[in-house]
Amino acid sequence: MDKLPKLVITDIDGVWTDGGMYYDNESNEQKKFNTSDSVGVIFLKIQKIPLAILTGESTEIVKRRAEKLNIELLYMGVKDKLTLAKRICNSKKISLDEVAFIGDDINDIKLLKAVGFSATPSNAPDYIKKIVDYVTTTEGGKGAFREFIEHILIKNQLLDQTLEKYLD
Amino acid sequence: MDKLPKLVITDIDGVWTDGGMYYDNESNEQKKFNTSDSVGVIFLKIQKIPLAILTGESTEIVKRRAEKLNIELLYMGVKDKLTLAKRICNSKKISLDEVAFIGDDINDIKLLKAVGFSATPSNAPDYIKKIVDYVTTTEGGKGAFREFIEHILIKNQLLDQTLEKYLD
Amino acid sequence: MDKLPKLVITDIDGVWTDGGMYYDNESNEQKKFNTSDSVGVIFLKIQKIPLAILTGESTEIVKRRAEKLNIELLYMGVKDKLTLAKRICNSKKISLDEVAFIGDDINDIKLLKAVGFSATPSNAPDYIKKIVDYVTTTEGGKGAFREFIEHILIKNQLLDQTLEKYLD
Amino acid sequence: MDKLPKLVITDIDGVWTDGGMYYDNESNEQKKFNTSDSVGVIFLKIQKIPLAILTGESTEIVKRRAEKLNIELLYMGVKDKLTLAKRICNSKKISLDEVAFIGDDINDIKLLKAVGFSATPSNAPDYIKKIVDYVTTTEGGKGAFREFIEHILIKNQLLDQTLEKYLD
Repeated sequence: MDKLPKLVITDIDGVWTDGGMYYDNESNEQKKFNTSDSVGVIFLKIQKIPLAILTGESTEIVKRRAEKLNIELLYMGVKDKLTLAKRICNSKKISLDEVAFIGDDINDIKLLKAVGFSATPSNAPDYIKKIVDYVTTTEGGKGAFREFIEHILIKNQLLDQTLEKYLD
Repeated sequence: MDKLPKLVITDIDGVWTDGGMYYDNESNEQKKFNTSDSVGVIFLKIQKIPLAILTGESTEIVKRRAEKLNIELLYMGVKDKLTLAKRICNSKKISLDEVAFIGDDINDIKLLKAVGFSATPSNAPDYIKKIVDYVTTTEGGKGAFREFIEHILIKNQLLDQTLEKYLD
Repeated sequence: MDKLPKLVITDIDGVWTDGGMYYDNESNEQKKFNTSDSVGVIFLKIQKIPLAILTGESTEIVKRRAEKLNIELLYMGVKDKLTLAKRICNSKKISLDEVAFIGDDINDIKLLKAVGFSATPSNAPDYIKKIVDYVTTTEGGKGAFREFIEHILIKNQLLDQTLEKYLD
Repeated sequence: MDKLPKLVITDIDGVWTDGGMYYDNESNEQKKFNTSDSVGVIFLKIQKIPLAILTGESTEIVKRRAEKLNIELLYMGVKDKLTLAKRICNSKKISLDEVAFIGDDINDIKLLKAVGFSATPSNAPDYIKKIVDYVTTTEGGKGAFREFIEHILIKNQLLDQTLEKYLD
């Protein structure tokens, strides 16, 4: 993909987190997000690129995080990410070639292979790393999503411009 | 062990977690699991190899995790893992030689020495590492269990097949 | 800045924490502070240098931490840190040249460029690192704030004296 | 100290934990302990060496952890660890020379200098490291306390014996 994507899709567990799932003795659960990634979301908004979350899990945790960051396209409990991504592309009249996607595990494989630009965090399994276009230097949960977005902006010589727009 | 195990046994604290136990000021406790390990559980199901959890602790936390991943063989508060493992083997009419076990600390020593294939995470004490067949490159809580399962599949040239079955 | 600052300002997320934000299924959130940084606060009190927290977030979490450490100058939900810092300086009749500030992300850039002494943790983005006077060797949440304070004391040959005063 | 200590004293924050203090939006707090350290407690019981916790903080968290591990000598909210340690020694009719102590920060300095054998985790400040007899290779919260106890046992050629007694 040589141009800016028309849609960015992201997985959550293992990408926005280190894969950690905190269980307690009651009925609650926690995930640990990183505020560094929220700057990636801001940069996409500045460039007017829509962002969709596609995750196999279905939790209030992710719903709350999406609300905090004003991310409207939230799909949880997704069994087949490729089929859903195609449907989203159809509704937006774009092709999968115009999509950038970051995922880290076996339920992301089909979509990683189908999009125009694919990425995975540095700590993903080797058989995921070898099928993607870009492996971040950052681990999941430590800013891998932000690095992915900044990488796209740098490739398009837009990082400085985006930062300046933010600082205005 | 040259063939696939007929039973896999896993410890929890220090294997599925980094040994961390989160205490609060009230009566609750947390453990941090890693979704990476859940793929190990899926791979065992694909290969129809039963999985048993044997842990010295007894918490709702582990019960909830086992339920989430549909693991039926859950034994908590286990004082003597070797004796219990023998009893499970008897009921399944298999021998300890056909069992693969991953554990990380002193209450795992006897069973680690008795099974057909033993493993421990990279951050286990040296006197555990030196008695096992395989030391994972991954730390406990960062996917050591998954690496253990993938290692078994790779040794039996079944990882690619297992992945393909998953993707079907 | 060759002398002791007359005011120290600190960001919270990414400096006192590793940027982690723990979300649960209910309405709660957690941040992980490090008691190592609390020694930095103690050292400032011994040297009678006021400390102000300026953070873009607004949570009970940070309020509780500031109360625990008896930090009175707590500003939360800050949109424009530079303008607020100028106002604080005016009220204290000091200049921004006499302020030391540690921050780690894009909302800190303007203030980092304006103060007399600026710092950022080792894991901040490169475009933050290159505009500051000092990059700590410690990561955010692992004692970066304490290192920042000790660095200031060492530059002024006051660390040993400060420690002695504490031990008296 | 060439012989086994007659008393072991341990700090908590930064030794049994990585210094992390988890705050939420309500009134709760968490610390993350490591089950690896609980083996250190077991080893001391096997060798019949009493263990005392001396911590500057005062929380239900530490009380719960001490209860879980059956540690009776729990002193919280300690302002002056040296004076308290002297008092405990008097009541036990032992001298500070016969005490081993692990601590990691400025409120531990006086006691670290006074005991027969002193230690600190690998991630303690340099001015703590340079006053102790032993710096663990492990970080606080990752098993530093257990390494400290095993180091004492190894020095006295008692680790193998202790392990054997445990396995009996």
